[in-house]
Amino acid sequence: MTANRFGSFPPGGDKAALDTPALVLDLDVAEANLKTMQRWADKAGIGLRPHTKGHKSPALAQMQIDQGATGIACAKLGEAEVMASAGIRDILITTELVGQRKLARLVALARTADLTIVIDDLRAAQAISDAAVEAGVAIKCLIDLNVGQDRTGVTPGQEAVALALDVSRMPAMTVAGLQGYEGHLQLIPDRAARAAASAECTKLIAETANLLTQAGIAPKIVSAAGTGTYQFMTGTVVNEVQPGSYVVMDATYMAVEHLPFAPALTVISTVVSRRGRTAIIDAGWKALTADYTAPKLQHIPGTYSSMGDEHGRLSLEDGVQLELGDVVELLPDHCDTTINLYDRFFLSRGDRIVGEWPISGRGRTA
Amino acid sequence: MTANRFGSFPPGGDKAALDTPALVLDLDVAEANLKTMQRWADKAGIGLRPHTKGHKSPALAQMQIDQGATGIACAKLGEAEVMASAGIRDILITTELVGQRKLARLVALARTADLTIVIDDLRAAQAISDAAVEAGVAIKCLIDLNVGQDRTGVTPGQEAVALALDVSRMPAMTVAGLQGYEGHLQLIPDRAARAAASAECTKLIAETANLLTQAGIAPKIVSAAGTGTYQFMTGTVVNEVQPGSYVVMDATYMAVEHLPFAPALTVISTVVSRRGRTAIIDAGWKALTADYTAPKLQHIPGTYSSMGDEHGRLSLEDGVQLELGDVVELLPDHCDTTINLYDRFFLSRGDRIVGEWPISGRGRTA
Repeated sequence: MTANRFGSFPPGGDKAALDTPALVLDLDVAEANLKTMQRWADKAGIGLRPHTKGHKSPALAQMQIDQGATGIACAKLGEAEVMASAGIRDILITTELVGQRKLARLVALARTADLTIVIDDLRAAQAISDAAVEAGVAIKCLIDLNVGQDRTGVTPGQEAVALALDVSRMPAMTVAGLQGYEGHLQLIPDRAARAAASAECTKLIAETANLLTQAGIAPKIVSAAGTGTYQFMTGTVVNEVQPGSYVVMDATYMAVEHLPFAPALTVISTVVSRRGRTAIIDAGWKALTADYTAPKLQHIPGTYSSMGDEHGRLSLEDGVQLELGDVVELLPDHCDTTINLYDRFFLSRGDRIVGEWPISGRGRTA
Repeated sequence: MTANRFGSFPPGGDKAALDTPALVLDLDVAEANLKTMQRWADKAGIGLRPHTKGHKSPALAQMQIDQGATGIACAKLGEAEVMASAGIRDILITTELVGQRKLARLVALARTADLTIVIDDLRAAQAISDAAVEAGVAIKCLIDLNVGQDRTGVTPGQEAVALALDVSRMPAMTVAGLQGYEGHLQLIPDRAARAAASAECTKLIAETANLLTQAGIAPKIVSAAGTGTYQFMTGTVVNEVQPGSYVVMDATYMAVEHLPFAPALTVISTVVSRRGRTAIIDAGWKALTADYTAPKLQHIPGTYSSMGDEHGRLSLEDGVQLELGDVVELLPDHCDTTINLYDRFFLSRGDRIVGEWPISGRGRTA
């Protein structure tokens, strides 16, 4: 056996010598993705607030801010704590915070970071206001609108405005605007269908923003959109976008039409058993999630399917040269959950490994 | 809002006051599961070598050994390193190890632990033997048989015996026996169908063991079976079983008939948004995997479905009292991959939290 032997296919160089499975972030590609998105935001005159729930890396977040991002978005309080402790100040937490332990942590974090949170319920807002008053901090919030995903969020229109008015009267709370994230549209492959659905959501947000302005609370921030829909925000009421996946992409997003980003994230895995047209590799569910479809084998013709927690099966086309000990490269099906399995990114430029970054927010689901 | 408020349903006590999402291991239940399995093994006269790839906890592994387990099984070298560094000596690594970096780590670990590995390929064995000779260590191995899962393993019968003979002639290698794990049968719900399929596998193992004995390498260890099939090993050639999930169980295993184990593992999650018959909770794919079907809501009538990375949706029956801030308890769909998302178990006895254990093997996929 020639361990880590290669045929005529990539990866080569340092990347091929990694112990596997390993998560690799191609910095050349990621930097190009960052620039492409920031250029769009600058041209559109829209604030870019990248969502960091996917990459969970303070280093990447700092790169995004250095390139011109307004601030960052986090999904969970634990992620925001990690980002704040790395020195990032302007943070929007995009999901509702409920529970006394969460509120104690929230008001503590509000002392060191410039936080904005989201609200979809009067009782939740009252509990946060009470905790903030007791701690002597002020809390900014966006009213979270349900624009069709039916996950969190208040109904757009008068119901949202009534909530905003009530919250704005609470002693520690400032209503800074609206969030209307259309998560259910991000992965619609067809561009025209995605654009049309997005326009419906943006119309709901605009109507609510108008009503809110009439009620005396002109929204400073109107935040919406992800990697699949940011491009439709030009010229709308939305003045901040919160895309995340564009930095690294994944197999599912690569199937969404007309996105100007390239995949920067792969998993390197080794062939550990070889029979006929099948190769078994050392990456299963614990190394590559399969939330949508399946990870995609790169460079050589074949398909990946999970063989449980620890293994994957490559079904290879005839004539593919792939031997025991060879390494392969796979594009994750879903970047967020795959990154959340690893403690670090290996950083590459092409096939050369140039460093490592800790995935400091990994596992910070609380 | 009354945070962490409860209606008439569990969980209560300390468990209900955890910050969420949180992973809880009920020690009373886990200890009962351990005893049940060890009693079976003692009665059957079969060695119990619990697989630790699921729980990834040296503390649980030590409990298993203290109760009479022969040793432990690990899936990955990284897990074995964690277990050995916690003082556990007798370790079987149940998946093939390939690649120079793996072999360097393997021979280093062989100096401190009593290791057994598995082999399904002559070239892989030669590379391991070469590394072992160079390091001055001896390596015990089992010949890994493909008894029908079509993942790893050599074909049972003469092909396996030929491999065993070749490996046994390598200077650093000792062939200690056979592994014939029937992973594809573990989750067959119907007991009779599972038993019949298991008997077919055991027949292949027995035939190979006979041939191996005739060839002069009587197998000391014949290892097979998991939580779904261990009970069929009584009176067969199999003299060690390697079940893992029985300690904690999960929703998928609970649907497998006639297993005498109770679920010991739950995820605690908080209702963060509430509308009509739907409650949104703070546990999505990053807190509860859904490899087979879906996590199961406990104590109250309703179903869980994932709403992406960070949220789950509970579809509740009419009249269910569940408010914003209430916490709910869910049985994971798949214990292995769910545990691998968390850094620690909270330990409970009933609803009381009595401690924490680190999940030291989490993320050790390499």
